[in-house]
Amino acid sequence: MPQLKVPATSANLGPGYDTLGLALTLYNNFKITRRNDQQLKLKIIDKNNKQEIKIADSENLVALAYQKYFEFIEEDLIGVEIIEEMYTPLARGLGSSSSAIIGGLAAAAVVSETLISEAEFIQLAVELEKHPDNVVSALVGGLTINFNCSDSYDYYKINVEQGLDFILVVPDFELKTENLRQVLPGKIDYAAAISNLSRVSLLTAAFINKEYQLLKIAMEDQLHQPFRKKLIKGFDQVLNAAYDSGAYGAALSGAGPTILACTDHNSELIAEKMKNVFNSYSINSAVYIVKACNQSLYQNLKEEIS
Amino acid sequence: MPQLKVPATSANLGPGYDTLGLALTLYNNFKITRRNDQQLKLKIIDKNNKQEIKIADSENLVALAYQKYFEFIEEDLIGVEIIEEMYTPLARGLGSSSSAIIGGLAAAAVVSETLISEAEFIQLAVELEKHPDNVVSALVGGLTINFNCSDSYDYYKINVEQGLDFILVVPDFELKTENLRQVLPGKIDYAAAISNLSRVSLLTAAFINKEYQLLKIAMEDQLHQPFRKKLIKGFDQVLNAAYDSGAYGAALSGAGPTILACTDHNSELIAEKMKNVFNSYSINSAVYIVKACNQSLYQNLKEEIS
Repeated sequence: MPQLKVPATSANLGPGYDTLGLALTLYNNFKITRRNDQQLKLKIIDKNNKQEIKIADSENLVALAYQKYFEFIEEDLIGVEIIEEMYTPLARGLGSSSSAIIGGLAAAAVVSETLISEAEFIQLAVELEKHPDNVVSALVGGLTINFNCSDSYDYYKINVEQGLDFILVVPDFELKTENLRQVLPGKIDYAAAISNLSRVSLLTAAFINKEYQLLKIAMEDQLHQPFRKKLIKGFDQVLNAAYDSGAYGAALSGAGPTILACTDHNSELIAEKMKNVFNSYSINSAVYIVKACNQSLYQNLKEEIS
Repeated sequence: MPQLKVPATSANLGPGYDTLGLALTLYNNFKITRRNDQQLKLKIIDKNNKQEIKIADSENLVALAYQKYFEFIEEDLIGVEIIEEMYTPLARGLGSSSSAIIGGLAAAAVVSETLISEAEFIQLAVELEKHPDNVVSALVGGLTINFNCSDSYDYYKINVEQGLDFILVVPDFELKTENLRQVLPGKIDYAAAISNLSRVSLLTAAFINKEYQLLKIAMEDQLHQPFRKKLIKGFDQVLNAAYDSGAYGAALSGAGPTILACTDHNSELIAEKMKNVFNSYSINSAVYIVKACNQSLYQNLKEEIS
């Protein structure tokens, strides 16, 4: 029985709204068993809460992606049983829905023994997810710069040093991405855009040249974080706690509520200080200390299938 | 008699509106002679048109910058004669006013034998120029990412490979920066901002990692070029001519009307093709093929003065 590992991802990284995605060494596992009929049997187990999650087939992104893949390759659907062991917290800004999409598409590739091109794979994933930053980084790993060109999406990948820790502090409440887009203004000021332009350029230089002291400024955002943080009690204080205890940079992960911090020292201490702030607001939180996942799932599929 | 060389600069590089500045190996020379009185004698010679340019002292940026420097260091003004030999075309989007500001400040540093810190130098220059991208790259060289932090400006410098040519095609008409800001809309769409975010991140990666094939997409802009190019007949055709003849990237320089293209092969041919398009619209243009200037004028001053 083949098993696929799809990484959690942090999209909208710092100033990289709808642009930068970071794959993390926190994985959802997809266990795939081919069936002899045309049925899809899906089981999702939330490993954090040790319970099964029930999602109607029509809303199940794993199933939708699996079917979409077969439609794209114009072959009859092959039945499958997929058990998703979910370690990535659900609806917390860590790309759990992108993980489901990539898992479903990848499962179809494995079962059909037909691997479409990476560009096609990305195209299908973006059609399902609408935005590229989570799905692309989940598929190819690393820190990706995502950009549209004509009608498609492409990316540039930066491998992130393994000496860096990413601390994820995940508060115990959900924010739905759809609602989160509604809190953003219709248009933005030049000053805000220019601030993000300078910082996203700086962040790119910081990760390529491994100059992490730049990250404090380079992680600043004016395009979504100022609006979304209002939905997260204690947000500024959690960021301050991260910086006060030595983090290089900290920002909202995805559309939140998870807060991500980056460091190469004292990770446990930084995590504890951040968690303590949430505690002081009577908010429970889970903490993960992970690395960037530089491995490409697409490359793994290529080696397995061809 | 000391002589200072201040590079021309291309601001707003590609998607880096008010953010990225590039120093070029096209210089204005400032010849400085200390006087024994407190008078400023300024002479500006336009070397391209072989004529002296008359600017009232109250509007002369060299004089204003020179005086401002003495005010800042709280010393009595020392008289000086400055002859500016101007090789950078005036009011064409190549930072001629920034060059005057940096020239004036640097002349004051030389004459007073007092060099203020680089951060202070930048602060004075930005106060005079309002935007950091031209003045900072003129002062420190290279490709600079400029960013504000609290009330001041800082930068990150990328040294640009000397194998690259920058082709400057300078049409024979002026555009004034002040008017050019008025053609921009008051606010911008998220989609435009996101497009520029992805491209400025890509452009940063392209120059650091020397992957110039990325530049065609990475030089695209949606924040100012679409509005300003309307003032430049044949703009799109000049860009197309650059790409068709093999340029990696091409964009407006500063606020225009100069068009900059980047290549490491066939520079003369690309320049000719671009110039021919302007010709076909009955627009004369001058062509310069230059390199990035990675040298820091500030470092030169430091070595000379301390």
